[in-house]
Amino acid sequence: MYTYKMMVQYDGGRYSGWQRQGNTGNTIQSKLERVLSDILEEEIEISGSGRTDAGVHALGQIASFQSKSYFDCPKMVAEANKRLPEDIAVRGIGLESPKFHARFSAKEKTYQYVINQSVIPDVFRRKYEYHYPGSLNVGAMRSCALHLLGTHDFKGFSTGRTNKSTVRTMKSIDIRQEGTKLYLTFTGDGFLYNMVRILTGTLIEVGEGKRRGDSVEEVFRTLDRSQAGFTAPAQGLCLMSVTY
Amino acid sequence: MYTYKMMVQYDGGRYSGWQRQGNTGNTIQSKLERVLSDILEEEIEISGSGRTDAGVHALGQIASFQSKSYFDCPKMVAEANKRLPEDIAVRGIGLESPKFHARFSAKEKTYQYVINQSVIPDVFRRKYEYHYPGSLNVGAMRSCALHLLGTHDFKGFSTGRTNKSTVRTMKSIDIRQEGTKLYLTFTGDGFLYNMVRILTGTLIEVGEGKRRGDSVEEVFRTLDRSQAGFTAPAQGLCLMSVTY
Repeated sequence: MYTYKMMVQYDGGRYSGWQRQGNTGNTIQSKLERVLSDILEEEIEISGSGRTDAGVHALGQIASFQSKSYFDCPKMVAEANKRLPEDIAVRGIGLESPKFHARFSAKEKTYQYVINQSVIPDVFRRKYEYHYPGSLNVGAMRSCALHLLGTHDFKGFSTGRTNKSTVRTMKSIDIRQEGTKLYLTFTGDGFLYNMVRILTGTLIEVGEGKRRGDSVEEVFRTLDRSQAGFTAPAQGLCLMSVTY
Repeated sequence: MYTYKMMVQYDGGRYSGWQRQGNTGNTIQSKLERVLSDILEEEIEISGSGRTDAGVHALGQIASFQSKSYFDCPKMVAEANKRLPEDIAVRGIGLESPKFHARFSAKEKTYQYVINQSVIPDVFRRKYEYHYPGSLNVGAMRSCALHLLGTHDFKGFSTGRTNKSTVRTMKSIDIRQEGTKLYLTFTGDGFLYNMVRILTGTLIEVGEGKRRGDSVEEVFRTLDRSQAGFTAPAQGLCLMSVTY
């Protein structure tokens, strides 16, 4: 068996997220599996580094898969891109050690959330940012972000139900203003379902002055979703990179 | 009568171009006229600085219109954006002297054409650039551009039939490379139907080495469309600004 690692870019707007959902869902994973199965002439199953929600984009999603066949990697990239819809592109494929697994081997992920505060929305970027024309206190948001750093139980900042651990380590949160755009960049060892969007919604409420920065400590204590902020819309979010 | 000047941004992808076509066409002009007529409660007819083709975008299209009513300009911007589809945005409206006309008063227009030479297309910019993964000799393209500057009869670089003058003055052509992207910026006193796209196609053929840079002199001499290059696809083109 050969183990392949693949980097994928996609515009999530048209899809019900990353993960395959039986035979019905229009998902990124199922599109990629169909194309790779076609090229390698066997049933291919791929594992993503994580599941992105419906409408969320990726610049550097990583996936792995195994195949009985050796196939020239640059040729597989070209063949895949010929067959994929124009909103999904394979950026690269390489051979990996048999132990490599896109999800289990991942050490760190970086997500970016883009907010556009201009009064008038940007027609060219509207599908890749959240148009929020209010003013935000960026200093207060940065202070709040400091409370989110480190290892915590992020259950209250998530909507999925799970029996697994909801403890994650947030390594950095960078909040950068460029003109009317606000870029929130989160790096951590893993993220729960909807976690970046709820953290962003919470930071926005802090920036609006509707919530104190240290109110997130209460969410960590109670693990209660209703204590956290709103879920910011999917289209502003992009999975930037995964580190192994 | 009050004369208004308006700046409009649009993603031309879904539209059959700027110009109203009876009652049938899905055009930018007709969308704007419907919205403004609704706000001002009278039949509004607008004039654009020029017609952009189907699929061409605008960052700073200028239009003018007259109305019997005085209406607060920032309020009209807000009302218009509430009613417009998300791929058209009014950036600003101001009062002008009664002599102002978006087309007749225009002194200079700037168009930009974006070519992406990367092997793999950019899924986020795919609707706003031409994916051309070949290599291009930018130096040869710049030399060719020098022949295009100045006042010439550009009939051979156009596809429309007209009895009016096809003489135009090209003031500058800037060709800038940034990573895999090539930005071609054209400034002139006016542009004929398809002119920027045919000039771009011709410059690409020069960059490919398929055509000599001075072959454009032959197009000026013969005024023959078949002597010029191919028509580059609409989605790479954007009307950047209009000067008065």
